[in-house]
Amino acid sequence: MNGSTPHPQLIGLDWGAISLRAYLLDEDGSVLDMRARHWGIRHLPDGGFDAALDDVVAGWPDGPVLASGMVGSRGGWREVPYVDLPSGLTAVARALSHVDSASGRRVHLVPGLRNTVAADVMRGEETEIFGALALQPVLAARSALLLPGTHSKWVNVRDGRVVDFATAMTGELYAALRHHTILGIGLGDEDPPVDHEAFLRGAVTARDSGAAGALSRLFSARALVLAGQLDTQAVPDYLSGLLIGEELRSALAAGRIDSATPLQLIGNAPLCRRYAVAATCFELGMALPPQGAAALGLWQIARVAGLTSASLPQSRVNRAMP
Amino acid sequence: MNGSTPHPQLIGLDWGAISLRAYLLDEDGSVLDMRARHWGIRHLPDGGFDAALDDVVAGWPDGPVLASGMVGSRGGWREVPYVDLPSGLTAVARALSHVDSASGRRVHLVPGLRNTVAADVMRGEETEIFGALALQPVLAARSALLLPGTHSKWVNVRDGRVVDFATAMTGELYAALRHHTILGIGLGDEDPPVDHEAFLRGAVTARDSGAAGALSRLFSARALVLAGQLDTQAVPDYLSGLLIGEELRSALAAGRIDSATPLQLIGNAPLCRRYAVAATCFELGMALPPQGAAALGLWQIARVAGLTSASLPQSRVNRAMP
Repeated sequence: MNGSTPHPQLIGLDWGAISLRAYLLDEDGSVLDMRARHWGIRHLPDGGFDAALDDVVAGWPDGPVLASGMVGSRGGWREVPYVDLPSGLTAVARALSHVDSASGRRVHLVPGLRNTVAADVMRGEETEIFGALALQPVLAARSALLLPGTHSKWVNVRDGRVVDFATAMTGELYAALRHHTILGIGLGDEDPPVDHEAFLRGAVTARDSGAAGALSRLFSARALVLAGQLDTQAVPDYLSGLLIGEELRSALAAGRIDSATPLQLIGNAPLCRRYAVAATCFELGMALPPQGAAALGLWQIARVAGLTSASLPQSRVNRAMP
Repeated sequence: MNGSTPHPQLIGLDWGAISLRAYLLDEDGSVLDMRARHWGIRHLPDGGFDAALDDVVAGWPDGPVLASGMVGSRGGWREVPYVDLPSGLTAVARALSHVDSASGRRVHLVPGLRNTVAADVMRGEETEIFGALALQPVLAARSALLLPGTHSKWVNVRDGRVVDFATAMTGELYAALRHHTILGIGLGDEDPPVDHEAFLRGAVTARDSGAAGALSRLFSARALVLAGQLDTQAVPDYLSGLLIGEELRSALAAGRIDSATPLQLIGNAPLCRRYAVAATCFELGMALPPQGAAALGLWQIARVAGLTSASLPQSRVNRAMP
């Protein structure tokens, strides 16, 4: 908060599978307050969605509520049909659904996007994308975006609209391999300190796997330990480098990116840095993520949908509007 | 057993990570009796290795005991150093180690093989390979072998010796993805009935992923369900086809196999059939596995190591000897 009188306009919820973030936003999309809970849609408190909402907005002024992410999925609070590609801010804002909480709040829900050509879907990332396009309007005309995470999204934007995307399950694959296979033997549940050298070694191994792909080198994370050539404590970062490197190798092989087109990272800063480091092994450039994309994306969608009464300075939106 | 008087010569143990199989073998390597337990080295009964051994051989005549597999690994009964490639029956038989049980039985242990060029290892599969070479001597001169499983082994044999091999963690990867990621949502722990069509669809998806690789298509196992284009009950076989198909695609891309060289399968018959079916999508030929390779491999190693007094008819061994 700053010293001037704030005018709360919107409560934005970034509500995913494993976490809930709530933003109180003012009339120009600035964040007045933020709260985080571990109440992803798979780990709700007693009382479910209603109780989680009431808690996370407690004490905040009344106002429209807009939620993005898995909260609108099958298994969420209410399923909102996907919007098909190509799709921009206007199409998404027109396709909001809503659910009314037991305490009488109307929660508007952002639809995800669907790629019918490649049978792929996203929920929540579309909101971060619209926020990033507003923060960095130069991206709207033509850009390649990468949102790393449990399910990484590789996104192509043209004229403010998402025209193509693909999912790589890198984060979830890492967790499954790290915690539920032989590769985790000798390691506790907590990760050891970061080992940059092991991470780069994994990324280079993936790069050098060529068309065979890094899955064929997965067992090296165990065999190198047995051979005394890799410390057990270095396995998590070697594996992380191998899988992130494979994501990059695969995207290059698919023609999804090329070394001439910089890629804009969006999302969690430490994870994005990890991708940027791996990218150096491939001589790829990646721009580090802008801060606040999710909150501003919610604000943008709410504004276009008419949920807020504010008008935004043109310089922040005109390039992002389809 | 047949009607003539058997002459037990060897107790052979195929002792892996998740199971223990014991064979009572006669003077020409035939199996007189077989017992199976779920006592892999990670799931031993009270009393550990000693108790498991005493139980599984109870009532059998005294005689030399030879064990292959993870029982000789770090974390096994006693670690036996690997034998480096290239390596054949003689080199392995010369490198046996042993441990004496509390009940006074000496258990000889078969070493695994190590590929120092590619940092890879196997334990147990070398014994199946020597058994298969004895069963099908034509394979000894020059062949490509595939032992599918938790950790699939792709093996090249020249002049009776293993000259190269590589591991694909396909089975363990399948289990981790099936049971510990979003791909298993809506499924119980038990697998639904086999869906051949879904399996082939997965294999073709992997084939058509090209140099990008099937990891980039992994999320399709979820997105197709959300799009109503794949039944939830079909996910396990779609995933199985995708991962086995990726193993084949990768091996072709690496030049490990080519469509002109038939591949000999060794191991579990239903799993081998699955690979043979996937191979048809790649126009690859695969020969189904011979029965009894593990037991005969133990017998062959024991004979060359001088643990048994029997002599084998020359026709069964001369091509398999390095």
